[in-house]
Amino acid sequence: MILTVTLNTALDVTYAVPALVPHSSHRVTEVTERPGGKGLNVARVLAALGHDTVVTGFAGGPTGAVLRDLLAALPPRDALVTVAGNTRRTIAVADAATGDTTQLNEPGPHVSAEEWAGFLRTYEDLLTGADAVALCGSLPPGIHVGAYAELVRTARTAGVPVLLDTSGEPLRRGIAARPDLVKPNADELAQLTGAREPLRAAHDARRRGAHSVVASLGPDGMLAVTPDGAWRAVPPAAVRGNPTGAGDSAVAGLISGIAEGLSWPDRLIRAVALSTATVLAPAAGEFDSAAYEDLLTRVGVQQHTA
Amino acid sequence: MILTVTLNTALDVTYAVPALVPHSSHRVTEVTERPGGKGLNVARVLAALGHDTVVTGFAGGPTGAVLRDLLAALPPRDALVTVAGNTRRTIAVADAATGDTTQLNEPGPHVSAEEWAGFLRTYEDLLTGADAVALCGSLPPGIHVGAYAELVRTARTAGVPVLLDTSGEPLRRGIAARPDLVKPNADELAQLTGAREPLRAAHDARRRGAHSVVASLGPDGMLAVTPDGAWRAVPPAAVRGNPTGAGDSAVAGLISGIAEGLSWPDRLIRAVALSTATVLAPAAGEFDSAAYEDLLTRVGVQQHTA
Repeated sequence: MILTVTLNTALDVTYAVPALVPHSSHRVTEVTERPGGKGLNVARVLAALGHDTVVTGFAGGPTGAVLRDLLAALPPRDALVTVAGNTRRTIAVADAATGDTTQLNEPGPHVSAEEWAGFLRTYEDLLTGADAVALCGSLPPGIHVGAYAELVRTARTAGVPVLLDTSGEPLRRGIAARPDLVKPNADELAQLTGAREPLRAAHDARRRGAHSVVASLGPDGMLAVTPDGAWRAVPPAAVRGNPTGAGDSAVAGLISGIAEGLSWPDRLIRAVALSTATVLAPAAGEFDSAAYEDLLTRVGVQQHTA
Repeated sequence: MILTVTLNTALDVTYAVPALVPHSSHRVTEVTERPGGKGLNVARVLAALGHDTVVTGFAGGPTGAVLRDLLAALPPRDALVTVAGNTRRTIAVADAATGDTTQLNEPGPHVSAEEWAGFLRTYEDLLTGADAVALCGSLPPGIHVGAYAELVRTARTAGVPVLLDTSGEPLRRGIAARPDLVKPNADELAQLTGAREPLRAAHDARRRGAHSVVASLGPDGMLAVTPDGAWRAVPPAAVRGNPTGAGDSAVAGLISGIAEGLSWPDRLIRAVALSTATVLAPAAGEFDSAAYEDLLTRVGVQQHTA
């Protein structure tokens, strides 16, 4: 089983409008809702790859109830911990004319110290059955900035490989707790290390504590810096589409590769193929499975020689 | 008791953002929710005036449950009829910098023929205890365009004075059923009658079936054309503020004046004072009660001589 943690789950709402015009009134022509937050997105991709997947984190209030109702219809198993606050919504306003979206993200519920303690007990229990764990996304209000560092240490004590995908100070603290893998994008990596050049920044992130670093470089593919060597994987050609969810698909590729004991080149091929197939899918956050199968044979990997 | 009908209730959600920039991502700094839809807004003002007030219409799904929880804390009594569909949300994105808002309105749940029939039974029961009824706002999907005409006829059969505040084809059909009063704004009146000049258009609307017509003319006050004569009421001075809810406050002023048996001039003074005090209140849809009391003595009314 693969466990994903989403401390700040969200009900992702998409509003179709003909065109968004600030300071005017819009009739929304279509409303779609789905369970969201990075770890839930990762879990959906893992389940589509055939992995037994469990999601934990927090959900509460009327919005949390809607999220859990929608989640119940999907393969990932719900081990979310109930909180008193209301789960946040994210609203993506999609312009029918251009396909561009405007994002409005609620802040998320305040999580109390008791709720955090309850979550830690659930997390420890779930780790006993996990082959790997992915810690994903932002922290909701009320949770201490060292929360991911705490979760990384608990996973390492339990002997479960742990991937951390977050940003800012929670990433900085989390890396110091020595996770098996971090997956920053170029901006997050530069913000963490001060270095804009990805190879140099990835080496720096390893020095800060991460055993391995995979930097996602958008259309330029991914760069891995690991104890076994460094590799660069690139898609066969530039693709056009919706990049929403591509990073979460990459995390699913990497964590499933870790759970299955794949080599680093094979983990990277899977991650790049999945994220590219996600950009190609018409719906945000879905991946095109035919394109994925095809890309698995066409993503190029090269080893870096120091 | 005064009854208000809101067939398309809404959970009114306000998002505070620093500034809305299309095709970018926004962190919402504050989320507020309140029960909405025109008839619910009218009821809130009626309750603030001290009137025993009952609200009916439809509510359903998780959003309907949130709406009813919030409504339970307010004075108007909840006689909403449950539907299977999910009550709509309206999102007002408020720019902190300019105070301007961008409105996103969901379409509302589909109402089935059985749900409509169930509502009609509730409505007839409620009319037996009502001194007046206000029918407010748009029709949700699934309800026939002659719905307000049906509700007007039922009220008239029950001997309850009925005010209709809607627009477009539902207004056109509703007027033909001879309501006691319609309260269009200048645009709605022009759309109905084809005449831009309010006095002429109001006379036309009477010929179409309305016993009385009160046209709301924004900063120019209100114009009443009734079987007893025609009057114009104007605020003492132009005011600056947020006009959201001013029309609903005017309806509350008119329907309470009907229930109390006030003269036409006194009904108009109350309606203009309430709507002006609503523009002056900092929160959308609230009214400034000190300003209201003051305006009652300062709104001017003039009788039109044919």
